[in-house]
Amino acid sequence: MSLTDPDRLFPVEPALRSLAKDLYAGIADLSILSPHGHCDPRWFAENKRFPNPAELFVIPDHYIFRMLVSQGIGMDTLGLSRVDGGTTERDPRKIWQVFADNFHLLRGTPSAMWLNHSFEHVFGIDIPLTSGTATEYFDHIDAKLGDDAYRPRALFDRFKIDALATTESALDDLSWHQMIRDSDWPGKVVTTYRPDAVVDPEFEGFAKNVVQLGAITGEDTATYAGYLNAHRARRAFFKTMGATASDHGHPSARTEDLPRAVVEDLFHKACAGTCTPDEADAFRGQMLTEMARMSQDDGLVLQIHPGSWRNHSAQTFAAYGRDMGFDIPSRTDYVAALKPMLDAVGMDPNLTIILFTLDETAYSRELAPLAGAYPALRLGPPWWFHDSYEGIKRFREATTETCGFYNTVGFNDDTRAFCSIPARHDVSRRSDCAYLAQLVATGRLSQADAHEVAQDLAYGLAKAAYRL
Amino acid sequence: MSLTDPDRLFPVEPALRSLAKDLYAGIADLSILSPHGHCDPRWFAENKRFPNPAELFVIPDHYIFRMLVSQGIGMDTLGLSRVDGGTTERDPRKIWQVFADNFHLLRGTPSAMWLNHSFEHVFGIDIPLTSGTATEYFDHIDAKLGDDAYRPRALFDRFKIDALATTESALDDLSWHQMIRDSDWPGKVVTTYRPDAVVDPEFEGFAKNVVQLGAITGEDTATYAGYLNAHRARRAFFKTMGATASDHGHPSARTEDLPRAVVEDLFHKACAGTCTPDEADAFRGQMLTEMARMSQDDGLVLQIHPGSWRNHSAQTFAAYGRDMGFDIPSRTDYVAALKPMLDAVGMDPNLTIILFTLDETAYSRELAPLAGAYPALRLGPPWWFHDSYEGIKRFREATTETCGFYNTVGFNDDTRAFCSIPARHDVSRRSDCAYLAQLVATGRLSQADAHEVAQDLAYGLAKAAYRL
Amino acid sequence: MSLTDPDRLFPVEPALRSLAKDLYAGIADLSILSPHGHCDPRWFAENKRFPNPAELFVIPDHYIFRMLVSQGIGMDTLGLSRVDGGTTERDPRKIWQVFADNFHLLRGTPSAMWLNHSFEHVFGIDIPLTSGTATEYFDHIDAKLGDDAYRPRALFDRFKIDALATTESALDDLSWHQMIRDSDWPGKVVTTYRPDAVVDPEFEGFAKNVVQLGAITGEDTATYAGYLNAHRARRAFFKTMGATASDHGHPSARTEDLPRAVVEDLFHKACAGTCTPDEADAFRGQMLTEMARMSQDDGLVLQIHPGSWRNHSAQTFAAYGRDMGFDIPSRTDYVAALKPMLDAVGMDPNLTIILFTLDETAYSRELAPLAGAYPALRLGPPWWFHDSYEGIKRFREATTETCGFYNTVGFNDDTRAFCSIPARHDVSRRSDCAYLAQLVATGRLSQADAHEVAQDLAYGLAKAAYRL
Repeated sequence: MSLTDPDRLFPVEPALRSLAKDLYAGIADLSILSPHGHCDPRWFAENKRFPNPAELFVIPDHYIFRMLVSQGIGMDTLGLSRVDGGTTERDPRKIWQVFADNFHLLRGTPSAMWLNHSFEHVFGIDIPLTSGTATEYFDHIDAKLGDDAYRPRALFDRFKIDALATTESALDDLSWHQMIRDSDWPGKVVTTYRPDAVVDPEFEGFAKNVVQLGAITGEDTATYAGYLNAHRARRAFFKTMGATASDHGHPSARTEDLPRAVVEDLFHKACAGTCTPDEADAFRGQMLTEMARMSQDDGLVLQIHPGSWRNHSAQTFAAYGRDMGFDIPSRTDYVAALKPMLDAVGMDPNLTIILFTLDETAYSRELAPLAGAYPALRLGPPWWFHDSYEGIKRFREATTETCGFYNTVGFNDDTRAFCSIPARHDVSRRSDCAYLAQLVATGRLSQADAHEVAQDLAYGLAKAAYRL
Repeated sequence: MSLTDPDRLFPVEPALRSLAKDLYAGIADLSILSPHGHCDPRWFAENKRFPNPAELFVIPDHYIFRMLVSQGIGMDTLGLSRVDGGTTERDPRKIWQVFADNFHLLRGTPSAMWLNHSFEHVFGIDIPLTSGTATEYFDHIDAKLGDDAYRPRALFDRFKIDALATTESALDDLSWHQMIRDSDWPGKVVTTYRPDAVVDPEFEGFAKNVVQLGAITGEDTATYAGYLNAHRARRAFFKTMGATASDHGHPSARTEDLPRAVVEDLFHKACAGTCTPDEADAFRGQMLTEMARMSQDDGLVLQIHPGSWRNHSAQTFAAYGRDMGFDIPSRTDYVAALKPMLDAVGMDPNLTIILFTLDETAYSRELAPLAGAYPALRLGPPWWFHDSYEGIKRFREATTETCGFYNTVGFNDDTRAFCSIPARHDVSRRSDCAYLAQLVATGRLSQADAHEVAQDLAYGLAKAAYRL
Repeated sequence: MSLTDPDRLFPVEPALRSLAKDLYAGIADLSILSPHGHCDPRWFAENKRFPNPAELFVIPDHYIFRMLVSQGIGMDTLGLSRVDGGTTERDPRKIWQVFADNFHLLRGTPSAMWLNHSFEHVFGIDIPLTSGTATEYFDHIDAKLGDDAYRPRALFDRFKIDALATTESALDDLSWHQMIRDSDWPGKVVTTYRPDAVVDPEFEGFAKNVVQLGAITGEDTATYAGYLNAHRARRAFFKTMGATASDHGHPSARTEDLPRAVVEDLFHKACAGTCTPDEADAFRGQMLTEMARMSQDDGLVLQIHPGSWRNHSAQTFAAYGRDMGFDIPSRTDYVAALKPMLDAVGMDPNLTIILFTLDETAYSRELAPLAGAYPALRLGPPWWFHDSYEGIKRFREATTETCGFYNTVGFNDDTRAFCSIPARHDVSRRSDCAYLAQLVATGRLSQADAHEVAQDLAYGLAKAAYRL
């Protein structure tokens, strides 16, 4: 018995399936490039064992626990930490049982496929997870986690990861990255510059963060000039820990290119905590343009992840804090929003700005036309809710005809669920091969070209775009 | 000869088709639950014969007559009633002939499939409707309508309807429902609480309606407290006629949770007819939250049907009134709009709020993420223009990966075209089986699970969500 | 060897493919109607040879050069003219080589299919375009262009074009059209009335253009009444050159039906150059309604092409001017926007207004419901970025179920790339047959009806809608 179909995600029609399998055979064993994600560098620095199945698969994965919550299962029952430090379930076996009892809620979701892939291909399990097999599952996985072969570095090597980018705050000391570099382990784990805490006036503790930024860099961040210099210094420091990119998670894709005096005024208001919401938004938008200008100098790739309404449930945020599965996408405009930045730097062929979206309507209407014109723009892969077979299909069908393959950048797993990395890349590779098979069989692409494109989508484009 | 293909809507690829047929075989004969719709309870109370083919199939069905109107056929020609009482066509045979002459306009639409299904499976016809067969059709159907086997109750039983919900105004005396209950017929016809006339300050006669609401309930609806009590009383009365749900058709999905004093002020303005459009909208939004709170107490399921621009053509509205096929969907936001209500009640696992949309862009961007997080939320099936093979396909493909199957609620036929009920449920069941077959054949769902899900989508989820 | 698959764009499943081929066989050889496009009437008036491959295929085609630009190739390198008259590449062989070197950027795009179709079916080439074959290609095409059989009129005849509409400014003297009419060549080339320069207060030189409009027509365009009369006169003149339609490219679909005094005031502000952006938009919107009223009188079909943000890159516009591939679609509302015009004229069955969109979300949500109700409305085919296999598929799947086939108007190639006309119509015909085959095989349309619909989509609907 098997939890995963060896021909999963390939088209069903025999001629198409045969084409897709042939394309996939050429790329299935390529190494993994993971140029954007949220793994914890500490795992690879310390190389300790993962604690238990619940803490590996359930508690840190908002894709999974939010689905259980959406059907009335309490966050306390799932062992999620309360902001007030109140007690929640601590027994990983109980949490695992609840998870198993409700595994059917994930039917038809990519999470189910990623989990089954991990269960089978990482842990060697071949029976379905059900209420009845929950204990057997727990014992089996828990035992494996005690093996050295299941420690983070060993899995990293076994997953054939050529490079893995984590994401750290601009204020992070990157000590875990330093510890990796100081070790004898050759795995390539690099950081990414994520300055939200010091570019978003609405971020908790913004003013204090800016002071800290000054302290770390020795720049006078009470002045805007010093503040910009401090960014330059941190970016340079992040580059010493392998960074090739920065990353920006804003509520919208708004950019600005305002006169210096206006920006300085916004900056001082931001530090004083007196920005209106619109002024805060304008400052964030200005900083995207500033970051792009710094990228012109230092070569970091700029990633924009806009359009998530964070912590939508006030009650959940108050009780459990951030990242609890209540980040909801909203409509995102790119055409007006990006114009100030694009007028400033968009025609620079040496700059790379990678756009992501949670609003699929932008694919064919805005993103593909923009990326199919501006030399600085590339499209990131389907993100978050859309990192799935149907999501990838919609992305390719909506963008390829307008901006081709070469204005896209391959796959990002964007995950903190380490064991899902091979599964996610596999889904991406299979879904792309399914799409390419369709193009070949309908006379839209030659088979030889399709093989080349498959390689590019699985590896080459990410390597080039992220300068890895 | 046959008007309907026995394998209609199933995938064409043989392996997929075989899977879909197998899934469908397991559910094709399940009874029908119709938890939301607009049939007239009077039909089942009086059990009179339907008058003639034109009044059964053409005149009451805006899907059909608007298509003829869109090609230049006058509403008068189709026998639609004028507001001014002026003469329109009264000969059902003439109307039927115009309908037959233009039947090709419906090619490729679900209406054509529903009609052919009714013609063949309800009336036993096996020749296509054309100009040449119009008279034969009319005679045949008209004769059948005279049979007792074609009276409303007999058809209800023949259609194997386990429960049918109609929709009545909060001010309705539900006398037809009472008459059904007083009869010896065991058919389960239940009402639904639809209070638009007394929650929408822009509804014709709102102030008078609120006075009437007071008179009916013995509450002092000149006060907001009395007004709320009157709602509670009516909801309780509707529950005695089987209601398990309320239904709300607002221009947008806006909700509010305003301070009591502000709401009282809005209420008094609404009664005085002095609300601005924005105040009217705010009051409607507040009432959704109030209705949700009442649902927490009395268990009625809350249905929200937002986003239709009613009576878009001023000329048509003036001449022919409401529901003339000129209700046009518009963009609908849910993320900001629902937040006040969700912050108030969204985490309550004992509450059920069912969201519908005419804006398919919300499926993957807003609705599935919301329903995949908030315990109180479920997604209604594709509505109105999207109640079709392609509409259902888009719905499943866009929502399942994010919120699974168990945050959806099965099918609603939402129709006043009684004979189309079996046809619509059949389209839904076939379309879902086609989708499930695709999942099975591409390794995204086991065949055993697919059979279970097919049962749930066809019957179980509606029963559970609507507490029928 | 062949550059084009004879079964391209047909479904892969054998039964579906067979159905699609059968449908296509019935329409493949129909003549072409090209009721909207941007060919230069001068070609057919003078009938000179096309200069060289680069000037035929690369320099005038923004689909192609923008893709190269998006990957960092300079516009100068591609020989595009600078606004300042500065030097850009003049050697067509060098431009052609750059094009060939980067042909892989077009993989998966409709441009690649159109080009390969032209290379093979117009120029008889059967080897792929690569860096290595660039010179051979250039020589071969250039030699052909010297043949009389490759002059514009000969190609027009060979392409079996029954009628071709060009698009001219309201101020154009239509002398090339006159020259065609004065010639002995029977080819039907007609003009289209495009009055943007005299209805858009933000158009460069609007005031001067209105004066010129007066001069041409002998009307006093200093008054609004004279201005309207001047339009009437020009429309009548355009009709003498075969025009059956007007065309309007506005930033939005906004229409207005304002009181005469307000409009006159807007008109005088527009002529004085003192309109605010909103007033300019209101005036454009009013003029759509006025044009529709004139159409009621003179029978011209009204085409609305809204929603393109023209010249998005300020830097590119400053250096290279208009139409440089930087026109980006944006969200477009129709429901509120069209209401004033529809309330004025939308119920007139003798009027035809054809709506286009670059915002595919409007298909199922707004456009199909509007066209499926208002007698005056029809939907234009997928436009610009969406004139492709996937674009056509999305259009049919999103609109047919709501407005059927008969509220659509067949295909527009909308191109200035003359050699792509047969290729584009072929893509449209094949894509429609693929869609129809799917309907037939899934029991949604009879095979006999599908053959009739295929004819209508390929020829009949365009002929009827455009009154050609």
